[in-house]
Amino acid sequence: MAHIDLGIDEKQFPGIIGLARYRPETGKPLFDLADTLLHAPNSLSRGERELIAAYVSSGNECNFCRDSHSAFAAAQLDGGLPLVHDVCVDPGAADISPKLRTLLAIAAAVRVDGRAVTTDLVAAARAEGATDVEIHDTVLIAAAFSMFNRYVDGLGTVVPDDPAAYEMSAQRIVEHGYSL
Amino acid sequence: MAHIDLGIDEKQFPGIIGLARYRPETGKPLFDLADTLLHAPNSLSRGERELIAAYVSSGNECNFCRDSHSAFAAAQLDGGLPLVHDVCVDPGAADISPKLRTLLAIAAAVRVDGRAVTTDLVAAARAEGATDVEIHDTVLIAAAFSMFNRYVDGLGTVVPDDPAAYEMSAQRIVEHGYSL
Repeated sequence: MAHIDLGIDEKQFPGIIGLARYRPETGKPLFDLADTLLHAPNSLSRGERELIAAYVSSGNECNFCRDSHSAFAAAQLDGGLPLVHDVCVDPGAADISPKLRTLLAIAAAVRVDGRAVTTDLVAAARAEGATDVEIHDTVLIAAAFSMFNRYVDGLGTVVPDDPAAYEMSAQRIVEHGYSL
Repeated sequence: MAHIDLGIDEKQFPGIIGLARYRPETGKPLFDLADTLLHAPNSLSRGERELIAAYVSSGNECNFCRDSHSAFAAAQLDGGLPLVHDVCVDPGAADISPKLRTLLAIAAAVRVDGRAVTTDLVAAARAEGATDVEIHDTVLIAAAFSMFNRYVDGLGTVVPDDPAAYEMSAQRIVEHGYSL
């Protein structure tokens, strides 16, 4: 049970889904932000951006966000869930592009503290071909999941028991993106 | 200088202001979120909500957000900047309501980790009269500033030299709220 009465069946609307229904005034900009960062056209693929979200959520041990965005990344990456798991354990050893590896290093720094992003980390990403917008979006995805993770865990929201719930959400996200 | 080329005069558009101009697709939902949390009608006053934002930003040592939201809180609270400083140093000793003190304790927990919000912290806030929406909004303000702080620091944005810059921004926020 969440810390507050969301007035819904929490099993049916777990994590941020229930929170967005409880308070649509904040749910709307939060889902708009997620859609722009993770689903809108971008030179980083949808799978790569979801992978950054899953990686940050895994670092923060936020089970709902980690499992949701792992499923969303897996549905949009050739390597599927095994690749997502590899990245969450050790991006340095995972079968991803050198550019994505440097962006994940930036995301890891942001997760701890924005000031941990050094000019060296940014230069390394640029040396692998990362653009300014890609660096910007990586920082903001990592920052945004520093928020989303704290939001769903801070209110003690319910986590689905059944992994199939994440796969159903993944189908909806892949087809329709993030919308309330 | 920021880590990426924002294509603007960074002194004129410091912190998140320059970032929102650089990437309005994300700036819009971010400012919409801030307006709903900090400026829209609420049973917590605008000054109280800005105080939560300043307190979290102070804990994260994000100078731009701390000084901006300290000025915005001061402009909308009877105690002005001295009260804001007292709260950032020690909410337990500051001249604020018992309810706000319990909400700041929740915000402090969220800043560290969402899972640090205990049922005891929530019960203490409720015992002082906090409503479910107030508890929700406190958690989300603290989570959102865990994002904003990482966003402006993670991209190495410029911090104004002159404190008057924050007071000018405060006048605009008080009158017009957050809008791009």
